[in-house]
Amino acid sequence: MNVAQRIALVTGARGFLGRHVARALEASGFQVHGLGHGEWSQLEARQWGVAGWVSADVEPGSLQALAIRPNVIIHCAGGGSVGGADQRPFEDFDRGMRSAAAILDFQRACAPDARLVIPSSAAVYGRAGQLPIDETAALKPISVYGLHKQLVEQLAEYYAANFHLRISIVRLFSLYGVELRKQLFWDACRKLAVGDFRFPGAGDEIRDWLHIDDAVELLRLATEHADRACPVVNGGAGRGRSVASVLALVAARFGCEGGIVFTGEQRPSDPSRYEANITRALEWGWRPRQDMDAALNAYVDWFKATIA
Amino acid sequence: MNVAQRIALVTGARGFLGRHVARALEASGFQVHGLGHGEWSQLEARQWGVAGWVSADVEPGSLQALAIRPNVIIHCAGGGSVGGADQRPFEDFDRGMRSAAAILDFQRACAPDARLVIPSSAAVYGRAGQLPIDETAALKPISVYGLHKQLVEQLAEYYAANFHLRISIVRLFSLYGVELRKQLFWDACRKLAVGDFRFPGAGDEIRDWLHIDDAVELLRLATEHADRACPVVNGGAGRGRSVASVLALVAARFGCEGGIVFTGEQRPSDPSRYEANITRALEWGWRPRQDMDAALNAYVDWFKATIA
Repeated sequence: MNVAQRIALVTGARGFLGRHVARALEASGFQVHGLGHGEWSQLEARQWGVAGWVSADVEPGSLQALAIRPNVIIHCAGGGSVGGADQRPFEDFDRGMRSAAAILDFQRACAPDARLVIPSSAAVYGRAGQLPIDETAALKPISVYGLHKQLVEQLAEYYAANFHLRISIVRLFSLYGVELRKQLFWDACRKLAVGDFRFPGAGDEIRDWLHIDDAVELLRLATEHADRACPVVNGGAGRGRSVASVLALVAARFGCEGGIVFTGEQRPSDPSRYEANITRALEWGWRPRQDMDAALNAYVDWFKATIA
Repeated sequence: MNVAQRIALVTGARGFLGRHVARALEASGFQVHGLGHGEWSQLEARQWGVAGWVSADVEPGSLQALAIRPNVIIHCAGGGSVGGADQRPFEDFDRGMRSAAAILDFQRACAPDARLVIPSSAAVYGRAGQLPIDETAALKPISVYGLHKQLVEQLAEYYAANFHLRISIVRLFSLYGVELRKQLFWDACRKLAVGDFRFPGAGDEIRDWLHIDDAVELLRLATEHADRACPVVNGGAGRGRSVASVLALVAARFGCEGGIVFTGEQRPSDPSRYEANITRALEWGWRPRQDMDAALNAYVDWFKATIA
């Protein structure tokens, strides 16, 4: 039997989330096309499962020029920095919101049978009142990044309902894993490698850390649940851990435990406590499987191998 | 005493709303700069009170190139067609939503002391449950146009609160008046002029018609009320009138009363009944002053003079 290969489009496939998503989709049998910012050699792109990489803004022209009719779309493009969005709101609007509007309109016009997953962010919740945070909690973003994510969700819900498209939304909490070259653990490795033990914040901030492999599996599962009702699920481990406790693990792997100092400065757009209620995702049959202690050891080892 | 002239920026100043706004601001002493789509001779622009007209997308580069620091900004740019937005959603996104994001970010970065008024639309309400419609009614847009207006309002409220900007929002109902070269009355004049009496819809749809002069005065007043709380007011006459009854007035001026036929077809994104609760605007001291019967006669006379 000759079955046509299924086609996936991953926007932002060169980024941390996108490349892991692309590799997983390719491993499950998709021909994966990637579109987004940055130069990427075809060789390296192929190592991440991307059959064809196009470096361009995600907008109608570049999407149509791909000349594909994907079965699955995962929209990983967008700015990835809360602080950067507060500094340059319009840039985050173009990268986050306009690219999402473009992908939704591409689905409507060119791939109405596709299943689209839009990764969103826990930043839509702002300062959470009660932990763990439920998907039905009020959305009160305290950052431009979170605001744009909220507006993208509304756009997606409208498209799903009014243009009868299959869409789902996953609100990712704090992702980590190899290839992440920014944020807490990357900064920590860079500092610890040169003997700098000072970190911003108080150390008692609570985050729900989700390993990239678990996130990718949840996004894959979300393609199956995409529908006109546009379901929304939290993507976290369902367990809050303090910044101090996880940095202690990183420091230990560096052989310098005990030395970390928190300076106390905080960014106004940083909420202090996040923990996801993941009941909905569990009901889909998903389970976070990665052990954080082991995964952080692997991260430090990858960092050392990368930097060396 | 030598007082520096106050500066106003009107985006979309070449459009129906924008040109009337520009002329009113100039009459009240502003030097008015205009930015938006379309070629406009400096002569004609000056007749509408616009000292300098720049034809360009409303985006950071074109805004900064104006090299002005306005005291007042009224953002009249944006798509003006509900049906067109449903046909080409991404185009409406760029014209309506992206231009608003650009003007908000321009205010934040370059004119933080300015007063910004964002004209919104009754389309944010969707199918209204109860008439008259209050500003606190749930927003459930049933058109892409209304959705984008809703998202722009959220963006504006965030900017006002978080970047401490003076902003206000006016939800305009059904505008009419001379220079409006689209929508019901324009279409009606064109049809009646050639003896075509057939109109879509049932004729019993209720709209709250607001004369352009009253709308402009409300927008001007809204600049004074712009603040960090981003007040929202309805801009309507506060009285619903059926499409059949107002078309009868137009037909009478054409000397062909009694002949209008409604075909019954309706667009799904057209709500059937709209009437504004204008208590908030009245509390600002505003009053709709134009008599619709006289104003429609003037419109028909203008149409005939324009077409001839």
